[in-house]
Amino acid sequence: MDFGNEALKRHKQLKGKIGVSLKDKLDTKDKLSTYYTPGVAAVSSHVAKHPKEARDYTWLNNSVAVISDGSAVLGLGDIGPYGALPVMEGKAMLFKHFAGIDAVPIVLNVHTADEIVDAVLAIAPSFGGINLEDIAAPICFEVEDRVKAALSIPVMHDDQHGTAVVVLAGIINALKIVGKQLKDCRVIIIGAGAAGVAVAKLLYLYDKPEIITVDSKGVITKNRKDLNKHKRHLASLHNVIHTHHKPKPIKEAFHGADIVIGVSKPEMITADDIKVMNKKPIIFAMANPVPEIYPDVAKKAGAAVVATGRSDFPNQVNNALAFPGIFRGALDNKVHKITDEHKIAAAKVIAGLVKKPTANEIIPSVMDKRLMPAIAKVIK
Amino acid sequence: MDFGNEALKRHKQLKGKIGVSLKDKLDTKDKLSTYYTPGVAAVSSHVAKHPKEARDYTWLNNSVAVISDGSAVLGLGDIGPYGALPVMEGKAMLFKHFAGIDAVPIVLNVHTADEIVDAVLAIAPSFGGINLEDIAAPICFEVEDRVKAALSIPVMHDDQHGTAVVVLAGIINALKIVGKQLKDCRVIIIGAGAAGVAVAKLLYLYDKPEIITVDSKGVITKNRKDLNKHKRHLASLHNVIHTHHKPKPIKEAFHGADIVIGVSKPEMITADDIKVMNKKPIIFAMANPVPEIYPDVAKKAGAAVVATGRSDFPNQVNNALAFPGIFRGALDNKVHKITDEHKIAAAKVIAGLVKKPTANEIIPSVMDKRLMPAIAKVIK
Repeated sequence: MDFGNEALKRHKQLKGKIGVSLKDKLDTKDKLSTYYTPGVAAVSSHVAKHPKEARDYTWLNNSVAVISDGSAVLGLGDIGPYGALPVMEGKAMLFKHFAGIDAVPIVLNVHTADEIVDAVLAIAPSFGGINLEDIAAPICFEVEDRVKAALSIPVMHDDQHGTAVVVLAGIINALKIVGKQLKDCRVIIIGAGAAGVAVAKLLYLYDKPEIITVDSKGVITKNRKDLNKHKRHLASLHNVIHTHHKPKPIKEAFHGADIVIGVSKPEMITADDIKVMNKKPIIFAMANPVPEIYPDVAKKAGAAVVATGRSDFPNQVNNALAFPGIFRGALDNKVHKITDEHKIAAAKVIAGLVKKPTANEIIPSVMDKRLMPAIAKVIK
Repeated sequence: MDFGNEALKRHKQLKGKIGVSLKDKLDTKDKLSTYYTPGVAAVSSHVAKHPKEARDYTWLNNSVAVISDGSAVLGLGDIGPYGALPVMEGKAMLFKHFAGIDAVPIVLNVHTADEIVDAVLAIAPSFGGINLEDIAAPICFEVEDRVKAALSIPVMHDDQHGTAVVVLAGIINALKIVGKQLKDCRVIIIGAGAAGVAVAKLLYLYDKPEIITVDSKGVITKNRKDLNKHKRHLASLHNVIHTHHKPKPIKEAFHGADIVIGVSKPEMITADDIKVMNKKPIIFAMANPVPEIYPDVAKKAGAAVVATGRSDFPNQVNNALAFPGIFRGALDNKVHKITDEHKIAAAKVIAGLVKKPTANEIIPSVMDKRLMPAIAKVIK
């Protein structure tokens, strides 16, 4: 199916994918006077005096803003707020479908970290939670940190943490198949953007493997002068010493690696790369729609387990496995911050839903209805 | 009916009055791939290249943000964003019920004109129109002017213009009953906040009556030193000369007036005030829930026509008569700015829907289903 053409056609027919619905009809004057003036004044007075009860009288208990500045939309890059809007509307659909959450797409016409933070904090009282989406690295890290610190509602940059949670879930099950422990593994992460940084941090937190991250210039090692603070942190997660004036080439990182996680660009991994890895290599090739290496090529080269971002291959790493349950739980359980412990708990739940992991099933289907409630239960 | 108690009860039961609905079910993997990745990428790419077509592929053609900083909520004053939220959710209900528009409540945690303007402009690409609501004067004037100037989507501060449109409609019909022309009338406006300023401007624009506005200190005359630019403008709409060092008292303004419009506080008008007015006086007493004077008292004192803001008396001046049609027309007809001409056209339509105005019917009922489509037609 040509999803692009089908999408253009369907979007133009529907003229937008979401709308606003009313929980009661406004079919009498009495209802008008109850839900609006004069009756609503009593509710407003009460909530103004008891702001913590706002969620009991308004949609705050079930609403999430899906906020993007359009600077890193899918694989399309910086396409601006209008280009981002169809994706954010789509994300709002996923929120409703998978978690029953009322999500509103908010696309921003501002671009610096300061401006994005100001805008998000200004509108924050309107929503019960905030899902940051498709904001480019490294600004995304600062934005999320500052917004989380300033607010006491759940805030999550899904490109980072949704991805990291599902990758960790997949890795937990993949390791069962190959009979290894994560702490004994060398992990190569290709791509040091939002997802790469978050995956590295969460895997390290989970079981302290050696993690070697590479960006477009090569391996991220301490001696490089071009590293921001996030990449300097990544450089501290391995013992590779490199003193050459040029960055160590990506290709050299594969030697002796147990796991390669691609969150980068099409065709960044070759069969030869896999052949120099440790035995029973695990490959997560998540570039979309064209992965870093196709599963059949990877398997032929010796990969024991392969995951991608695509729904038409086994083991799809899809954020939609994680974020609906994470936000559902956070809203229902009045969670003020989504923590690393929450993410690890969610990953374990996702992994645990696959009773007997096989090379073709390390991750549940996104359509698995057990996911959302099982994850929500542990986000507390 | 005790609407306050009923409202508290119903709001707590419903836990919010609005939600998000999906225009299609996400019940297959193909739909997921059409409305979200990978299909949506084609839509995003297209829209990024042709931003003017965004409204054809997204909810922009039918979405409005209802934005408040909570600084002037109903008669409750500055109760902040959480206090404002139940009102903005209620307004979103009215948008959907009366105009089929998908409106989202946005309450702001910022307070200066600069901050409000920055926040509104930052999120503006998310919506097809902007309804400013319950922002205190005089900040509301600057905010609306700057937001309108910066954007090419419909923007309206409803407390100003919705009120002004319905008042003008009511005045048009009231004057038919008393057999006067607006241009020959002396109009007293009690209250120089958002509504008072907008009513004064629109009535003057419509037929240049003499307009005397009073604020809490007294008549707004040119010699006063405490006037902001909006009040200085109001001072230019009449010929009252006052050189005394104290402001001219409100009570003196009633002498010889034809129309009194109260957008102020309960019981600001007495029977004696009406007795010194010109013959067949018209009284709009719109303070809520307790009007400046009750209709029976006003009529006993000689008022020919009385309107209030209440649904339980005849002639309810209710913004909900105007804004649904104004925004419906603006969105459907791709109007970039809501102009004074639009407001006058809307007022004429509203007035015209009452075929034979009587003292008890100068304004249609808010439940009159002809209103929205008839107004929408002239907002083009």
